[in-house]
Amino acid sequence: MHKQTIKEVLEKYKEFLHRDITVYGWVRAFRSNRFIALNDGSTINNLQIVVDFQNFDENIIRNITTASSLKIVGEVVESQGAGQNIEIIAKKIKVLGDNFTEDLHSTILQPKKHSLEKLREQAHLRFRTNLFGAIFRVRHAVSFAIHSFFNERAFFYMNTPIITGADAEGAGEMFGVTSFDLENIPRTEDARIDYAQDFFGRKTNLTVSGQLEGEAAAMGLGRVYTFGPTFRAENSNTTRHLAEFWMVEPEVAFNNLEDNIDLAEDFLKYVIQYVLDKCKDDVAFLDKRFAEEQKQKPERDRAKEGLIEKLENVVKKRFMRVSYTEAIEILLNSKENKKGKFAYPIENWGADLQSEHERYLVEKHFEAPVVLFNYPAEIKAFYMRMNEDHKTVAAMDVLFPGIGEIIGGSQREERLEVLKNKMQMMHVDPEELWWYMDTRKFGSVPHAGFGLGLERLVLFVTGMTNIRDVIPFPRTPKNAEF
Amino acid sequence: MHKQTIKEVLEKYKEFLHRDITVYGWVRAFRSNRFIALNDGSTINNLQIVVDFQNFDENIIRNITTASSLKIVGEVVESQGAGQNIEIIAKKIKVLGDNFTEDLHSTILQPKKHSLEKLREQAHLRFRTNLFGAIFRVRHAVSFAIHSFFNERAFFYMNTPIITGADAEGAGEMFGVTSFDLENIPRTEDARIDYAQDFFGRKTNLTVSGQLEGEAAAMGLGRVYTFGPTFRAENSNTTRHLAEFWMVEPEVAFNNLEDNIDLAEDFLKYVIQYVLDKCKDDVAFLDKRFAEEQKQKPERDRAKEGLIEKLENVVKKRFMRVSYTEAIEILLNSKENKKGKFAYPIENWGADLQSEHERYLVEKHFEAPVVLFNYPAEIKAFYMRMNEDHKTVAAMDVLFPGIGEIIGGSQREERLEVLKNKMQMMHVDPEELWWYMDTRKFGSVPHAGFGLGLERLVLFVTGMTNIRDVIPFPRTPKNAEF
Repeated sequence: MHKQTIKEVLEKYKEFLHRDITVYGWVRAFRSNRFIALNDGSTINNLQIVVDFQNFDENIIRNITTASSLKIVGEVVESQGAGQNIEIIAKKIKVLGDNFTEDLHSTILQPKKHSLEKLREQAHLRFRTNLFGAIFRVRHAVSFAIHSFFNERAFFYMNTPIITGADAEGAGEMFGVTSFDLENIPRTEDARIDYAQDFFGRKTNLTVSGQLEGEAAAMGLGRVYTFGPTFRAENSNTTRHLAEFWMVEPEVAFNNLEDNIDLAEDFLKYVIQYVLDKCKDDVAFLDKRFAEEQKQKPERDRAKEGLIEKLENVVKKRFMRVSYTEAIEILLNSKENKKGKFAYPIENWGADLQSEHERYLVEKHFEAPVVLFNYPAEIKAFYMRMNEDHKTVAAMDVLFPGIGEIIGGSQREERLEVLKNKMQMMHVDPEELWWYMDTRKFGSVPHAGFGLGLERLVLFVTGMTNIRDVIPFPRTPKNAEF
Repeated sequence: MHKQTIKEVLEKYKEFLHRDITVYGWVRAFRSNRFIALNDGSTINNLQIVVDFQNFDENIIRNITTASSLKIVGEVVESQGAGQNIEIIAKKIKVLGDNFTEDLHSTILQPKKHSLEKLREQAHLRFRTNLFGAIFRVRHAVSFAIHSFFNERAFFYMNTPIITGADAEGAGEMFGVTSFDLENIPRTEDARIDYAQDFFGRKTNLTVSGQLEGEAAAMGLGRVYTFGPTFRAENSNTTRHLAEFWMVEPEVAFNNLEDNIDLAEDFLKYVIQYVLDKCKDDVAFLDKRFAEEQKQKPERDRAKEGLIEKLENVVKKRFMRVSYTEAIEILLNSKENKKGKFAYPIENWGADLQSEHERYLVEKHFEAPVVLFNYPAEIKAFYMRMNEDHKTVAAMDVLFPGIGEIIGGSQREERLEVLKNKMQMMHVDPEELWWYMDTRKFGSVPHAGFGLGLERLVLFVTGMTNIRDVIPFPRTPKNAEF
């Protein structure tokens, strides 16, 4: 038996008119002992159930309360009221399970406005709210669009290891993984920790990136992408950091920096357009919420664009492609820099750009997404390809309004000798990465890739501001509840 | 500039005939100083490049060797030879990077037959072999089919936490996650490990399942599925165990056991049919390999069906639905059991079925995939729904030929009091799972779900026998290389 979702009933209501159907869901509201707003999570919209209380046992009516779970059989009719095309005249109502209404007041299911903090503390229940329903449906659409984009372009999905023996990229602090009983860690004769006795026979960590393994895969399969969890043990209690987050990392053999920028631009536009197309109701709700939030702010802090407007503009506008060197020129010559308005003034070529600089370029100077490329070699990772100028590397960052860097990537250094020298300079051990070096020894090819933090993109698309609100169960310092 | 893959060129060759195109790839073979077999990973098929050595510098010809990387510009013409529709008459050849041919002999890129063990030791290079190219393209197709199946059925993809504070399911040994310096673990005043000072302020582990969090999400969003890495710190050095593997776990509000079985059957058939449709060349290659492998075996150990035949049969046949109680009857009455052919003889109702029993049912008795359901409560997990008989739970396992259990699932216990009693009996602490209990307190609904190990399914579909050969970089005891 195929169960129709409320989304299906509402969207294809003409097929259901004057027929008896069965629907399931939770009560969002019960007005006048007559109108149930039923929601099953498939859509932000509720289905209106009309109950003639004379036809039902009093016990059933009494059990229809906020959050209770119902199975309804009834006839689909055109709705008399405003706000919906159809409603269901209930013929049978079954309460499906317990609902301890006396305890409900301490939960976020209590129908009133709750703070995002409180919703976070009850992350297991926030899926039932309009806001988090919308966010997680959009998160799904973003994820599916990512897989679709790459699948359509002949990329292969790669699962790179989560537990890793390498700490090569040095992309930040790593979590240790061990099967040791910490009360009783085995020691070698010279009293050091005997990692040979640990599960993997060595010290292991949680991955910070699947890129290096992704490169190895691309050297055989051509076009690959990862999409999996990555980890940072950084003690950053901010609205932009998670200890566990999901990352997408395409890697493409034979691509150069320009191909890589093209791919990143196509990719972001595809995913955002997909969400605009497939999540109209949820995005409309988030757009309204965003507008209301802006109204609470002092005028100078308000976003220039509405949420939908912002998303449509990103899809429409050509991303500005600007070299790091040009960007420094622009920043040096900016009123902001001259008047000392930046917390970190730009003084010379070589400076690492801060979020304030990125946002100036995107939001004030270009008023469009910006791709910065060819960064100073010193401020970028060892694997990025050295340019002819011997000063810059073929790196690229995509900067978005309101959020700054959304994608970071590069063409990779494919020349074995150049790579070796760079690793030496940057204190990365080629011995430890023997297998990575092999990919440059046997049929090495130019290749390029980038990384996208899923939650950053979901933040951008939903207009939310705290990254903990776009992942179901956030992991942050001192918090691994659920 | 859009780069065409070799797959595109071969499939749409009529569009390219008599045109000059650019292709990229690695040399698989160079015959008679004239014919290059070029492969770019997009397909198992090579593109034939015809080189007239009189037109090229000797240095270039000398650099065309096994594994070297080339960019070719040339004209697409109809092929004179057998085995391909087209070939490329090379006009320009560029060697793209280093290829240290003198070191090649120690690698698996050396063109000869290598053992699967040796290929595993060079997992970073095995992507370039026909076999592993095929396996990982199929793995991609399986993954994409999984996302497509659920997306088409209005499921939402959920990322449940990888790092977790819970050890609730008790599904086996867990890896610890810590940011402690193991040389210097902070202690409380009474000399115990001070987990309050660890990153998350508590003891944390790597997840063994996202099910419980998935259930919470399904209680809001209706239909969800996870697809992410899970971990077991079990010291099992077998061909069927990984310490890190990818699991798919759908969870559906309002579904009962029968719905759950329907979903599992539809799901497996969809994914396998998708692979048959989309990976014809790779599956044909794997089918041939499988047949050759069977020939090496003594006749009694050979598979009854070829690989493709087996896959088509699974799609075609209705899965047999058999209660545990019926299955025990069948096994008790079997010749095998009576003659003592089982390593673990079935003596009575209540016995836990072993792989040999599962395979007897599937391969000998029913000759079809089998879904066993309604298992004794004692041998199943605490969250499975108690049946009316108070002896069995609404569990289900899908058993496949050659591989045994491929899916395990259940309807979940949605009745708060029944669940509490069960947890008490099974020594699971409801306090620790306060949030899980909440999902039964507020609008509890019948719901069901299951788990599928991705690698098990890829093993089945590819006809491989060692699970380390269907994941790019396997994690097993004493092995976390790459």
